[in-house]
Amino acid sequence: MEAFLNNLFADAEAEYTDARYVVFGVPYDGTSSYRAGSREAPGAIRAVSYNFETYLPSVGVDLWEVPVTDLGDLEPLSLPDLVVGQVEETAAMIAADGKIPVMIGGEHTITPGAVKAVKPQCYVVCDAHLDLRDEFGGTKWNHACATRRVMDLDVEDIFVIGARSGPAEEFELVEESERLHMYTADEVRARGIASVIEEIKEIIGDRSLYLSVDADAVDCCLTPGLGTPEPFGITTWDLRSVVRAFAARASGFDYVEVCPVDAGQTAAVAAKLIREFIAWNWAGKEGL
Amino acid sequence: MEAFLNNLFADAEAEYTDARYVVFGVPYDGTSSYRAGSREAPGAIRAVSYNFETYLPSVGVDLWEVPVTDLGDLEPLSLPDLVVGQVEETAAMIAADGKIPVMIGGEHTITPGAVKAVKPQCYVVCDAHLDLRDEFGGTKWNHACATRRVMDLDVEDIFVIGARSGPAEEFELVEESERLHMYTADEVRARGIASVIEEIKEIIGDRSLYLSVDADAVDCCLTPGLGTPEPFGITTWDLRSVVRAFAARASGFDYVEVCPVDAGQTAAVAAKLIREFIAWNWAGKEGL
Amino acid sequence: MEAFLNNLFADAEAEYTDARYVVFGVPYDGTSSYRAGSREAPGAIRAVSYNFETYLPSVGVDLWEVPVTDLGDLEPLSLPDLVVGQVEETAAMIAADGKIPVMIGGEHTITPGAVKAVKPQCYVVCDAHLDLRDEFGGTKWNHACATRRVMDLDVEDIFVIGARSGPAEEFELVEESERLHMYTADEVRARGIASVIEEIKEIIGDRSLYLSVDADAVDCCLTPGLGTPEPFGITTWDLRSVVRAFAARASGFDYVEVCPVDAGQTAAVAAKLIREFIAWNWAGKEGL
Amino acid sequence: MEAFLNNLFADAEAEYTDARYVVFGVPYDGTSSYRAGSREAPGAIRAVSYNFETYLPSVGVDLWEVPVTDLGDLEPLSLPDLVVGQVEETAAMIAADGKIPVMIGGEHTITPGAVKAVKPQCYVVCDAHLDLRDEFGGTKWNHACATRRVMDLDVEDIFVIGARSGPAEEFELVEESERLHMYTADEVRARGIASVIEEIKEIIGDRSLYLSVDADAVDCCLTPGLGTPEPFGITTWDLRSVVRAFAARASGFDYVEVCPVDAGQTAAVAAKLIREFIAWNWAGKEGL
Amino acid sequence: MEAFLNNLFADAEAEYTDARYVVFGVPYDGTSSYRAGSREAPGAIRAVSYNFETYLPSVGVDLWEVPVTDLGDLEPLSLPDLVVGQVEETAAMIAADGKIPVMIGGEHTITPGAVKAVKPQCYVVCDAHLDLRDEFGGTKWNHACATRRVMDLDVEDIFVIGARSGPAEEFELVEESERLHMYTADEVRARGIASVIEEIKEIIGDRSLYLSVDADAVDCCLTPGLGTPEPFGITTWDLRSVVRAFAARASGFDYVEVCPVDAGQTAAVAAKLIREFIAWNWAGKEGL
Amino acid sequence: MEAFLNNLFADAEAEYTDARYVVFGVPYDGTSSYRAGSREAPGAIRAVSYNFETYLPSVGVDLWEVPVTDLGDLEPLSLPDLVVGQVEETAAMIAADGKIPVMIGGEHTITPGAVKAVKPQCYVVCDAHLDLRDEFGGTKWNHACATRRVMDLDVEDIFVIGARSGPAEEFELVEESERLHMYTADEVRARGIASVIEEIKEIIGDRSLYLSVDADAVDCCLTPGLGTPEPFGITTWDLRSVVRAFAARASGFDYVEVCPVDAGQTAAVAAKLIREFIAWNWAGKEGL
Ligand SMILES: [Mn+2]
Ligand SMILES: [Mn+2]
Ligand SMILES: [Mn+2]
Ligand SMILES: [Mn+2]
Ligand SMILES: [Mn+2]
Ligand SMILES: [Mn+2]
Ligand SMILES: [Mn+2]
Ligand SMILES: [Mn+2]
Ligand SMILES: [Mn+2]
Ligand SMILES: [Mn+2]
Ligand SMILES: [Mn+2]
Ligand SMILES: [Mn+2]
Repeated sequence: MEAFLNNLFADAEAEYTDARYVVFGVPYDGTSSYRAGSREAPGAIRAVSYNFETYLPSVGVDLWEVPVTDLGDLEPLSLPDLVVGQVEETAAMIAADGKIPVMIGGEHTITPGAVKAVKPQCYVVCDAHLDLRDEFGGTKWNHACATRRVMDLDVEDIFVIGARSGPAEEFELVEESERLHMYTADEVRARGIASVIEEIKEIIGDRSLYLSVDADAVDCCLTPGLGTPEPFGITTWDLRSVVRAFAARASGFDYVEVCPVDAGQTAAVAAKLIREFIAWNWAGKEGL
Repeated sequence: MEAFLNNLFADAEAEYTDARYVVFGVPYDGTSSYRAGSREAPGAIRAVSYNFETYLPSVGVDLWEVPVTDLGDLEPLSLPDLVVGQVEETAAMIAADGKIPVMIGGEHTITPGAVKAVKPQCYVVCDAHLDLRDEFGGTKWNHACATRRVMDLDVEDIFVIGARSGPAEEFELVEESERLHMYTADEVRARGIASVIEEIKEIIGDRSLYLSVDADAVDCCLTPGLGTPEPFGITTWDLRSVVRAFAARASGFDYVEVCPVDAGQTAAVAAKLIREFIAWNWAGKEGL
Repeated sequence: MEAFLNNLFADAEAEYTDARYVVFGVPYDGTSSYRAGSREAPGAIRAVSYNFETYLPSVGVDLWEVPVTDLGDLEPLSLPDLVVGQVEETAAMIAADGKIPVMIGGEHTITPGAVKAVKPQCYVVCDAHLDLRDEFGGTKWNHACATRRVMDLDVEDIFVIGARSGPAEEFELVEESERLHMYTADEVRARGIASVIEEIKEIIGDRSLYLSVDADAVDCCLTPGLGTPEPFGITTWDLRSVVRAFAARASGFDYVEVCPVDAGQTAAVAAKLIREFIAWNWAGKEGL
Repeated sequence: MEAFLNNLFADAEAEYTDARYVVFGVPYDGTSSYRAGSREAPGAIRAVSYNFETYLPSVGVDLWEVPVTDLGDLEPLSLPDLVVGQVEETAAMIAADGKIPVMIGGEHTITPGAVKAVKPQCYVVCDAHLDLRDEFGGTKWNHACATRRVMDLDVEDIFVIGARSGPAEEFELVEESERLHMYTADEVRARGIASVIEEIKEIIGDRSLYLSVDADAVDCCLTPGLGTPEPFGITTWDLRSVVRAFAARASGFDYVEVCPVDAGQTAAVAAKLIREFIAWNWAGKEGL
Repeated sequence: MEAFLNNLFADAEAEYTDARYVVFGVPYDGTSSYRAGSREAPGAIRAVSYNFETYLPSVGVDLWEVPVTDLGDLEPLSLPDLVVGQVEETAAMIAADGKIPVMIGGEHTITPGAVKAVKPQCYVVCDAHLDLRDEFGGTKWNHACATRRVMDLDVEDIFVIGARSGPAEEFELVEESERLHMYTADEVRARGIASVIEEIKEIIGDRSLYLSVDADAVDCCLTPGLGTPEPFGITTWDLRSVVRAFAARASGFDYVEVCPVDAGQTAAVAAKLIREFIAWNWAGKEGL
Repeated sequence: MEAFLNNLFADAEAEYTDARYVVFGVPYDGTSSYRAGSREAPGAIRAVSYNFETYLPSVGVDLWEVPVTDLGDLEPLSLPDLVVGQVEETAAMIAADGKIPVMIGGEHTITPGAVKAVKPQCYVVCDAHLDLRDEFGGTKWNHACATRRVMDLDVEDIFVIGARSGPAEEFELVEESERLHMYTADEVRARGIASVIEEIKEIIGDRSLYLSVDADAVDCCLTPGLGTPEPFGITTWDLRSVVRAFAARASGFDYVEVCPVDAGQTAAVAAKLIREFIAWNWAGKEGL
């Protein structure tokens, strides 16, 4: 009998029971402030994942040998607090089973649900936006509040890489808070990502970690398929370095805010870096 | 000094005080179940409104002579019940000032807010969907519940034209309810829209009326720019007949669920029919 | 635990063993003569299948109650004869298991493989093109030869509905062959589809049947997402009538040549009619 | 040696000297009032012309046997009066050589240049717009003035089919002018195109004729790739009937105002009808 | 009462009388030589301006505190010389009122009108093209002649940054003219933009300045939404440095030649840099 | 008489007999594994070639003075081995006539046909992929096998620049083979392209050369219009350096795998670099 492709993430062929990595999609974009459509990201990222070889020469891992499963997409409800609950329930199940959740958004609103389930000591997020509003659009569960909601949890240190957008109050909050460590895109550009990563690693030490990628951290001229595109961002190489550097330490991962209205490049980067995350975590190596 | 275009609805040049018709947009699509993007409709419909002449030969009205204003877009909050509240407040102000609200969606969720403010005795809606669910996605304020929420108000008779989609329970509810009058797209095709309109007019008599157009009433092969496209619908001519027949009687009007991902035809039909609504209401004539 | 969507055809939730209908995709467009891209059709048609309600009021069937499975996509090889072999093997397995194959193309080249496996006495195809070339582009396995390859099988009568394009030789072949019955789009328009269907039913009698829909049978102004678009075709209503009329008699079905470069309407019609095929076959009713 | 495709109009393989039909493109859209882009039409129409068979079964002509040439595209200057001059010079050369110009726009502004060169007694134009302004945008050479400029020539009768848009003054001018014969889209829909064509033929008698197709005559829901799209227009079948009815009598032809921003259907209709024009003129037959 | 968005440039909420900055759009693209569509830029740039925060951390300015107004769009006539006249009249009014014009094109043709009104001593332009033709397409008022027309005015020094395209004659003219200072994209890449800016500042001294940004100065791989895209250009960071360096000195500014056919990144950069221009001018600071 | 544009490659105005460079297109994408559509590349690249000036200031060549012809497009058959035969025949004719073939793909499968005809001693290819599979999709003539098929010929040394994708076996083959020289994108980024070029030049010495550009060598964030897009690639400047460095030595050239689904930037780079190849070869200079 012929083999068939199931349209889920490429090479995620393991059964749930055997899997070390559990991919799932959250096609939710109900609070997106500028451009809707990140609900299409899980499908677009899965589709382009078939474009890539199973072998990653940088780390010497072949994904055929790694036990990954893909649950498919959550069916998100229509209110953001309910969706965060769905995410938390799912991620908690995965974490309780000793597996690593690999969540594909959807908008950033969903991340605090996964972080709450995974209970990391540290949180590294790449994002153009500080996402530190306490409320937006009449709700605390808005993608403009993602990092603020993470602050509500027992996370000791929060590192924001690529930030360049927010009201003055958010920049002031960064100044005031000892838990918040901001590395703007301009600073990354000036210092080099290696220096920034080294500093973050030193602060983190051997504490546990959740890694969240808001795709708009990257300059929108490189990856324009975004819900709230910002120019003057970090590069895809910077982002790859962050993924390679922290994958082995992370007990949870997500990639959010892709809005696939471009020619496919933003989803291609996402699919590639999700694969890099899995491979580097599996290899237990730290790279750049 | 040169004249400037303000990018609002074409020919909506009156001051609010002088206006008989008050256009406003509600770029909200937070509960849309299939394709997001109806938030882009107010902008797209306004843009193509400049494509049309001010003179409507069918009714002999020149829109330059009609007092229309355009408030711009509401800034919708992120929760659907809050948005419905914003809409109700706005429409109530307009109605209290003796003017006619002309609302451009956004998704259908918003219509019950305007209907509540306008307080019509009858409600005519063109829609592919029955929209009779009592709850969807964890909320009563979902675009799948639009007509059900209108049933909660003191509206005596509800006429759904072009319906062809819903769970079995919704079709049963239509059977059971004396207030609900359904004319499926297939029935419109078989009987002709004139016959359907005549029957509705007889039932309505001289009662007051709100007219809501969910753009997906029309076949998605004619107007594919929709959030929840359905083939096998009514034609644009059917819809034009409905607008021309009921405009003069209506004290409120909306056009919702356009999602401008096509080559512009769906927004063009919307802009044209909003202009027809205003012209036929102003002329006080009933046409086909 | 939350439910997850698997991104296969909506409501195709049965196990293979229990299924009466077996959906599978064939993302192959290697010989397409004008516009490539029908490889994207299975994904696009599955995606929009979630836009539709499970209940089909026309026939009173709810697809939740019908045992359908979706195998996913064949991984097509790069040579058309090999792909036809993959299709034949798959369809033969399905037919041997007493199930009905529901194949989503991909280009029309694949149909003869399924027909060979299903072994019907009659073949009804909707197509703008006669597809009667004996060879094209250096191969007998080209989408321009689809119906000619069916002629090579033990099929007694072939009915082509909506034809309007071909070299003079193909029209002459229709004249000469007693097995070929052509109903051009202009004839359908002039006579009405009901008359054409009645005539075909009389000729078929109680013989077995395979039904193939080349999406370009429909006028490209209604459904422009096609590999070889032709204006002046049949309507989507005509096509729906053909599906409703012959579904109950068919032991195999395919829908091919969608090329989803439009705003989604062509895939929406395809998904809807695949659902109609299943529902009307399941109900065992013949409609219009 | 292999054969090569030259990317000009399909089957336009004759030398200029031998040709009866001379195709040329005018990629000019400098005065287009709404959406720019009709400059892309000649390329798009030529590209899709390769999608069609050489044989036209309706009239029994194979275009391989018809002497057609394609000069390519004029390089339009940047001022509309200069472009009209370029067109006139080109069409005059073609007419002087006893050939029939087949011009592909570009915007409608160019048509009066060709009409002036061809010197017909009658002018039949399909257009949503009356195009009767004497000046627009500071110039007499605007696409809103196309038919008005034809009135300046020695053309005895002007027939506008499909009109539905213009300021009140233009409709009044139609009332007043004995040379202007208007058949609105609504009238075509009510009477049927055959009745309209018959009436026009009677008025024309055996006088010479130029046929101009402004693609926006057709309803923008059928063919949305237009510079100034208008809903509620004539159908593609109506337009095909006009082409088949008048091709044999015409000594000049153009197809203008396609703006290929859709999925290709508008250019496909254009390419097909240009082919029908050539075939029916060559056959010397009148059809419907 | 709810607040409404007026769809003009974000945060341009001042009355004209109070404004220091006067934004206006010129949706004109009538002479564009390659791809039409820069007429859509003012709308696209305004739309994406709402994507950005009001606070600019680089310069510590919040745009809510800056008096900006937006007049909307000029209604351009159809001949380029007339449009330049409209622009000159508008910019002259703004300058006479002691305000700073911030013009959004449309094509580059319009810039000389604004420069003539503002009467600067120096002119800094970022452009891939030298724009030094004396005539093109039969007119002196073509976007290929923009800088040449500025040479006709009493402007003492002209600085072209990012140039890389032109006929040999234009490069020779640069060699010969003492007023023309060219910094090619390759030179910017080799020297660094800071060095180039420093040199220009030294030449300018304290003379007055007009700053014009032709968006195609930037590499078309970073910002592909352009009328005449050129690869191998300067980066968006280079352009940001130019804006930050010269904003405080400039008495007039424009951003032209965006043609928003991409995923929005080119308009996003434009909106962001228009905001940077206003903020840095308001702050009276010079940055990089 | 007016001049006309023939829609072939800009400035390719020579007769075949006089030409030194012979452009031809091969619109074939029949084995493309991910996204179809490179068949559209020859048309897209020719179209944008008109966007560029004839003068190339970097090398001081004006293309009006260079004898280039464009044959148009091969009409590819439907089987890849047949298409390779068509290419070989065409390239052999051109080479036999002492001219240089400049082939525009289409997919990479076609390159071995041209290399076989040109018979170079060395082969330089820019590619994200190693293309070293011996068979894929059931055929040896697949774009995944392009470089492997070149290995079958009498080519002494093969240089792959920008590689970053392949199964482990292909990377092992590179290790084992003395003829294969790989410079990954990461290595190019680390060393600089100048160093890589210098090394390759030393190995080649004065041997003859064929230069093939698979457009996906470049990072898909810079040029996303690709059939198999890969992020983390070389830059357009790297690629330009390769073209400038090796053009003068090359006796054959191709540019393949552009799939023009983006905003035009990928085709713009292709057209520009094809022009650079011709100019630098004509000048007989080596640049960077
Ligand atoms: Mn975020
Ligand atoms: Mn963000
Ligand atoms: Mn609705
Ligand atoms: Mn609806
Ligand atoms: Mn077919
Ligand atoms: Mn077909
Ligand atoms: Mn016209
Ligand atoms: Mn018109
Ligand atoms: Mn310029
Ligand atoms: Mn420029
Ligand atoms: Mn390759
Ligand atoms: Mn490749």
